[in-house]
Amino acid sequence: MRVHLITPEDVCAAATRIQGEVVRTPLTAGPAGGPHFLLKPESLQPVGAFKIRGAANAVALLNPTQRRRGVVTHSSGNHGQALARAAARRGVPCTVVVPEGAPPVKVERMRAHGARLVVVPPTERAAAARELERTEMLALVPPFDDRAVIAGQGTVGLEILEQSPDVTTVVVPVGGGGLAAGVATVARGVRPGRIRVVGVEPELAADAAESLSSGRLVTWPEERTYRTMADGVRVCLSELTFAHLRENLDEIVTVTEEEIARAVAVLALEARVVAEPSGALATAALLAGKVGTVPGRPEATVAVVSGGNIDPALLARLLARS
Amino acid sequence: MRVHLITPEDVCAAATRIQGEVVRTPLTAGPAGGPHFLLKPESLQPVGAFKIRGAANAVALLNPTQRRRGVVTHSSGNHGQALARAAARRGVPCTVVVPEGAPPVKVERMRAHGARLVVVPPTERAAAARELERTEMLALVPPFDDRAVIAGQGTVGLEILEQSPDVTTVVVPVGGGGLAAGVATVARGVRPGRIRVVGVEPELAADAAESLSSGRLVTWPEERTYRTMADGVRVCLSELTFAHLRENLDEIVTVTEEEIARAVAVLALEARVVAEPSGALATAALLAGKVGTVPGRPEATVAVVSGGNIDPALLARLLARS
Repeated sequence: MRVHLITPEDVCAAATRIQGEVVRTPLTAGPAGGPHFLLKPESLQPVGAFKIRGAANAVALLNPTQRRRGVVTHSSGNHGQALARAAARRGVPCTVVVPEGAPPVKVERMRAHGARLVVVPPTERAAAARELERTEMLALVPPFDDRAVIAGQGTVGLEILEQSPDVTTVVVPVGGGGLAAGVATVARGVRPGRIRVVGVEPELAADAAESLSSGRLVTWPEERTYRTMADGVRVCLSELTFAHLRENLDEIVTVTEEEIARAVAVLALEARVVAEPSGALATAALLAGKVGTVPGRPEATVAVVSGGNIDPALLARLLARS
Repeated sequence: MRVHLITPEDVCAAATRIQGEVVRTPLTAGPAGGPHFLLKPESLQPVGAFKIRGAANAVALLNPTQRRRGVVTHSSGNHGQALARAAARRGVPCTVVVPEGAPPVKVERMRAHGARLVVVPPTERAAAARELERTEMLALVPPFDDRAVIAGQGTVGLEILEQSPDVTTVVVPVGGGGLAAGVATVARGVRPGRIRVVGVEPELAADAAESLSSGRLVTWPEERTYRTMADGVRVCLSELTFAHLRENLDEIVTVTEEEIARAVAVLALEARVVAEPSGALATAALLAGKVGTVPGRPEATVAVVSGGNIDPALLARLLARS
């Protein structure tokens, strides 16, 4: 099966489209005292994660009929909030299919953006969203298995290229692979051969690493990926994101739960950035020495902090240890 | 006594001078669910506080002889680290007079920037710095009682004006008054009559509020100001900063310790920003309704988060309560 990949031009177009709806996050100093690198704190986006970029691009690309009818998704996490917000900003009705037992705080935030919530048993989420797509003719905006979403996430990479002309390594978390796919596409397209994009997964949810090393899409069962505290990356790649990563990602490494925990604490205390465990993956890999840096040249290496929606009790616990 | 005030032009010149040494921090979304306002997270600066701006401007303004001889200061907090870093970036020798018992982590960071540390009993700090100024002919760069430092801190305000053309209220913490003096000067100078700058102090260290209401500089004894957890604002105004605030600050309000504690937790959890108690003062005043906002127009009000160097145990404790 040949998969149609997005292009660097798609990412540039997305950047123009979503301007004004996303924060141009700065590059900031990484933690003191360790390897030298900069941070791209996407935790500062509205809704606390890079997800607003892909959602805003997808909503901006709707045709007038789709805008009138509305969008639907089935993520209860950062993507659900991002889509609710992006849709509200353009007056588009938004429906989010929420699994029973979803964190009340996340559900409340989606409601605050005016989203209609449809609560279903966890296993019926995807089917329920597809059913709404069919019966109500809503536009389905999945969290990563979508070209418009991937192009939107790629704008993180475009900004890094603009903000640090001397960057040679960009490190990104990999969950569903939308962020890594978009960033790798634009990095390789704009500066071929001069930038290395490295993906990072938890050891306990290393489906992408296994897929890339085996050359075919491997999915891990939920009971396996749910062991990692990095709840944002428990999902597996899709055929679409896998195809992008196989083509453009330079390398993928894994980190332990202990390395993730330490990175969350170090980011908060040494870089003043609140990261959720998934958001701390790239930093964890750098702190653990699993991705090389250039001594004295922090601007050569950028770690994307993808999100900051961490459970308060977990953050308190990780800080108290340090 | 007539005091010579800095001008908006001094702030603009400082901005040009310190470019490349400071982060242009973005305006980011304030906490969800409460009054509508944006944040200016200066906690993301190198050294974790706006202090790098004033220090960098002061170092940039040294003449060649001063550069060769070096700078000295007596702050063991954020300003000491900021001066050490700013001096190191321009190859200027830096001496910091440190009180016995200063937090080892802060001392270590100054040493990491190559600063020479002179340890003295706390009460002898200022005298020791003046002694070094005299005997070694070092340039004294005080934390706020200095025109170059005030002009540098004012660049926070200049950036806010550029980033949010519709801003009508800027809220800033007041300790020694350098930040508030710089921001108020540039706001009133650039958009006279159209921007209100509001200072915020802890109730337990409200010397500036008392000074401004009584029309003369009042200082509070250390044993009184040291009751607040906001350790960065336990200092009092100087004649120089008082003169600036009397001329240009629109209003000053105070917040309780409980309001400060809540703001630190809300910033971390709802806005993904790590703030130290002093850094959370402006947010605390807004969350408590002590400074008005414009519903539906978050861009009209900006809270400066001045710094993020918080004790890990304190942050963990404040998060665990929420």
